[in-house]
Amino acid sequence: MTQKELPLILVSNDDGVDAPGIQNLIETLVVFAKVVVVAPNGPQSAKSHAMSINQALYYQEVTPSNSHQNLKVYSCSGTPVDCIKLALHGILEQKPDLCVSGINHGSNHGINVIYSGTMAAALEAGMSGIPAIGFSLLDYDYHANFKPGLKYVKEIVMKVLENKLPKDVVLNVNIPKLPENKIKGIKVCRQIQSRWEETIDIHEFPMKQHYYWLSGTFLTQEPNTCMDTDHWALENGYVSVVPTQFDFTAHAFKKELENWNW
Amino acid sequence: MTQKELPLILVSNDDGVDAPGIQNLIETLVVFAKVVVVAPNGPQSAKSHAMSINQALYYQEVTPSNSHQNLKVYSCSGTPVDCIKLALHGILEQKPDLCVSGINHGSNHGINVIYSGTMAAALEAGMSGIPAIGFSLLDYDYHANFKPGLKYVKEIVMKVLENKLPKDVVLNVNIPKLPENKIKGIKVCRQIQSRWEETIDIHEFPMKQHYYWLSGTFLTQEPNTCMDTDHWALENGYVSVVPTQFDFTAHAFKKELENWNW
Repeated sequence: MTQKELPLILVSNDDGVDAPGIQNLIETLVVFAKVVVVAPNGPQSAKSHAMSINQALYYQEVTPSNSHQNLKVYSCSGTPVDCIKLALHGILEQKPDLCVSGINHGSNHGINVIYSGTMAAALEAGMSGIPAIGFSLLDYDYHANFKPGLKYVKEIVMKVLENKLPKDVVLNVNIPKLPENKIKGIKVCRQIQSRWEETIDIHEFPMKQHYYWLSGTFLTQEPNTCMDTDHWALENGYVSVVPTQFDFTAHAFKKELENWNW
Repeated sequence: MTQKELPLILVSNDDGVDAPGIQNLIETLVVFAKVVVVAPNGPQSAKSHAMSINQALYYQEVTPSNSHQNLKVYSCSGTPVDCIKLALHGILEQKPDLCVSGINHGSNHGINVIYSGTMAAALEAGMSGIPAIGFSLLDYDYHANFKPGLKYVKEIVMKVLENKLPKDVVLNVNIPKLPENKIKGIKVCRQIQSRWEETIDIHEFPMKQHYYWLSGTFLTQEPNTCMDTDHWALENGYVSVVPTQFDFTAHAFKKELENWNW
């Protein structure tokens, strides 16, 4: 296969260009693809679909830790969504065949998808008609072991390169924190109904100003017997794959709302 | 009606606590409700569902420009989503009857919903089971005229207080930039398929670093004849109301994806 025939894959994340998760992703992809990385220059976790307006953003090409002829790496001062916009309209000379975001240090299943910068990068690429996948490992540790999931990353990337994805569909893939021989395979799922229950630790200043820290607990809102959810899959040793979209319309309620006698 | 019987409404936005849009909203609500405002201390536009993790946030009670016995106002250093979490878990002593976000200076129809801090605040409240509405005016001007839309704001708020909303449904309301006598009424819609086409203005530094500015154009991806979209409603003089949800699953594609021979 000549250099020209290799697929072009755009890579980003929200943990920053130096995070082990994206390094593992790059090493997995670069053996069969031309890879261009445009990723934040530091942590941008939980930045969701935020973009930077009314401010200048900075980027530069950086020397990757594992240099490879198929690899170029850019570091950007913006959010994950800023990185994708920059890549598509400022850096890449052609439309990529695929955009892959991650591997995130921590879960993006259930309601986490709405807070996730990793998934926002994938969704932003999807909006421009580029097949896209976000990968996350259920381990928040900076030194998490990404190796057991890498064969699934490769399998899913290959399948999407082969089959493409429909317009406006992006894959949200989560990998359980398990050794390779305990992962049972891949399961296509839906997003579980879930939310975060916050705890706020408030302290008072002398001048009546307050400061506080947020923390929280992930709560599922469906019984454990719902076997079609991403949460069930992950709890039962599967890699979860949720087809994900960005039409926020609550279609099922539209008819009833029309009858509210406006 | 005694003070105790007034509904409790939580108010936030993404343009900041001093923006004319939220001031117009507060003045509309405070005549029939107890209003607690928890809003960013400065602009947080396009911050989407971003939240602040691993950092301290600040808030304080501030003196509103139009003080009223039914009104309390807090200013917070975080994003709109941080404000809602703080309000629900740190400031309010009881669950509010409604959360209202806005009035945003600029459109949040179509794909704008995913970038919007205004809608993120409403969605975050919705996730905690609170009926919620985001209001936006199609005028980015700081000195926009909010008056023509206020009777619709009141009507929609009253209807939601009366009827409630189903769990996991939040209303996304956009108001056309028109004088009062040109607004034809309220239309329940779906989100139009749309995206932003970016323009990136890149400049080079001597040290090979680059800086750039993002700007873009809103593009619809459906014909003007689709009369059930928010875009059509706004173009034709209606206030658009889109029932909005936060399940990102692309349910229609799930079955096909299951058949990809995993």
